[in-house]
Amino acid sequence: MRLRIDFSYDGTDFAGWAKQPGLSTVQGDLDGALATILRDPDLQSTVAGRTDAGVHAHGQVLHVDVDDSVDPDRLVRQLNSFLTGGAIHVHRAAVAAEGFDARYSPLFRRYEYRVSDAVENRDPRTRRFTYWADDPLDMELMNEAAASILGLHDWTTYCKPRDGATRVRELQVFQWRRDADGTLVAEIQADAFCHNMVRNLVGMCIAVGRGRLQVSDAVSLRDQRTRTAAFIVVPPHGLTLLEVGYPPDAEVGARAELSRARREPV
Amino acid sequence: MRLRIDFSYDGTDFAGWAKQPGLSTVQGDLDGALATILRDPDLQSTVAGRTDAGVHAHGQVLHVDVDDSVDPDRLVRQLNSFLTGGAIHVHRAAVAAEGFDARYSPLFRRYEYRVSDAVENRDPRTRRFTYWADDPLDMELMNEAAASILGLHDWTTYCKPRDGATRVRELQVFQWRRDADGTLVAEIQADAFCHNMVRNLVGMCIAVGRGRLQVSDAVSLRDQRTRTAAFIVVPPHGLTLLEVGYPPDAEVGARAELSRARREPV
Repeated sequence: MRLRIDFSYDGTDFAGWAKQPGLSTVQGDLDGALATILRDPDLQSTVAGRTDAGVHAHGQVLHVDVDDSVDPDRLVRQLNSFLTGGAIHVHRAAVAAEGFDARYSPLFRRYEYRVSDAVENRDPRTRRFTYWADDPLDMELMNEAAASILGLHDWTTYCKPRDGATRVRELQVFQWRRDADGTLVAEIQADAFCHNMVRNLVGMCIAVGRGRLQVSDAVSLRDQRTRTAAFIVVPPHGLTLLEVGYPPDAEVGARAELSRARREPV
Repeated sequence: MRLRIDFSYDGTDFAGWAKQPGLSTVQGDLDGALATILRDPDLQSTVAGRTDAGVHAHGQVLHVDVDDSVDPDRLVRQLNSFLTGGAIHVHRAAVAAEGFDARYSPLFRRYEYRVSDAVENRDPRTRRFTYWADDPLDMELMNEAAASILGLHDWTTYCKPRDGATRVRELQVFQWRRDADGTLVAEIQADAFCHNMVRNLVGMCIAVGRGRLQVSDAVSLRDQRTRTAAFIVVPPHGLTLLEVGYPPDAEVGARAELSRARREPV
């Protein structure tokens, strides 16, 4: 029986999602809790978005194959009792639809990146998930740059290279807003992201918002398809995975097959 | 020359506002930074709201008497450089109006208390400033209880006793809302608060929202003017001082004299 588990975490004190020997990771804690509760030492989960060290998630999804006798609601309570402190919180668990794969079934991933650019408004309470930029930023220019690069493209300029994997992705949404307290928030959605892609795209926008890059540089840099020193990659702690979008139950199997055939997603 | 300094802090890792030997406190760090930067080892600040251990502030105010040569804008930059990590952040500093007293001039203090009552919605990123309640809460009943007890009253039932000080305060605003993510937020304002008053009032409302107290108990308990075990005092980490309201500059001196004469505020 395959379970889908929806959960969230504060990534501050974790060395990222993926298990690493000797390091505290989200997968290490979660798989450890599942293995103990379900008495299966070989248990392995598969996650929708393998976040880097310091990155948060509110709406992360995993699947795990378990014995038919597992009660999903009871498992949620057991996991939240086991994972003390609240840095990881499980929202719900349910039997997954036939063919569901947390990693390959998604239609899209949606992230947010939070930036505070005003000494007057900074909130120490949210500093663990908000990047404090040095200078005031021009949101209008940042939105022009963000809108200019949407679509299906090769994102080599904005990715940390990994051998073999394609860097062609469809950037579906990229826009900035100011929240009531003045915080700049980027909403950014793609079918899937290459490694470090969101943090590179946000770094480019911040350079535009400061006047260090032109709006037109967003596309011209992208089309050079080569790494650049024209902007800074922003730090991980401002980034949160907010949503993983799946097709209707009847289509999750076909979608997973298509994704597996097309690319190795990150 | 008297300076007014506006600032914020994440209270999680502090033993409250007030200096205590051997403990990390907000006043200890801030007065230490001011004393070092201004080279005045005897420097002492006076704050608007002396928050307890674990309580946060976004919009706290202090005054401090300094030499005429101090440049307020430069001082803000120096303080934020000195106070690394962002747990305390200084928004601005300015020469205070004649007669201004951070503690005695306020017309009101406004707090918020954040409660998450749904496993589905809890956000680990905000858990350091949000209380996770065990059961779903009925906001309508909580708002009826909150509205019923507004006004100028003796708050002995809802205060931790301190010898000598009056417990008569004017509760001006007390209302609950649900934010977009489902978090229950109490807004609560008074001319001044007795010790632990907000956390007692919120505890009473939560007992009402769970069905363990009747709406009418809010007033009947208040009018007994005695400590009670009918509800639990909620933990400090859900509480944030949000605003200190001062009169126009021309009236801050008279207001301070009036407050000093009427009560010892907390």
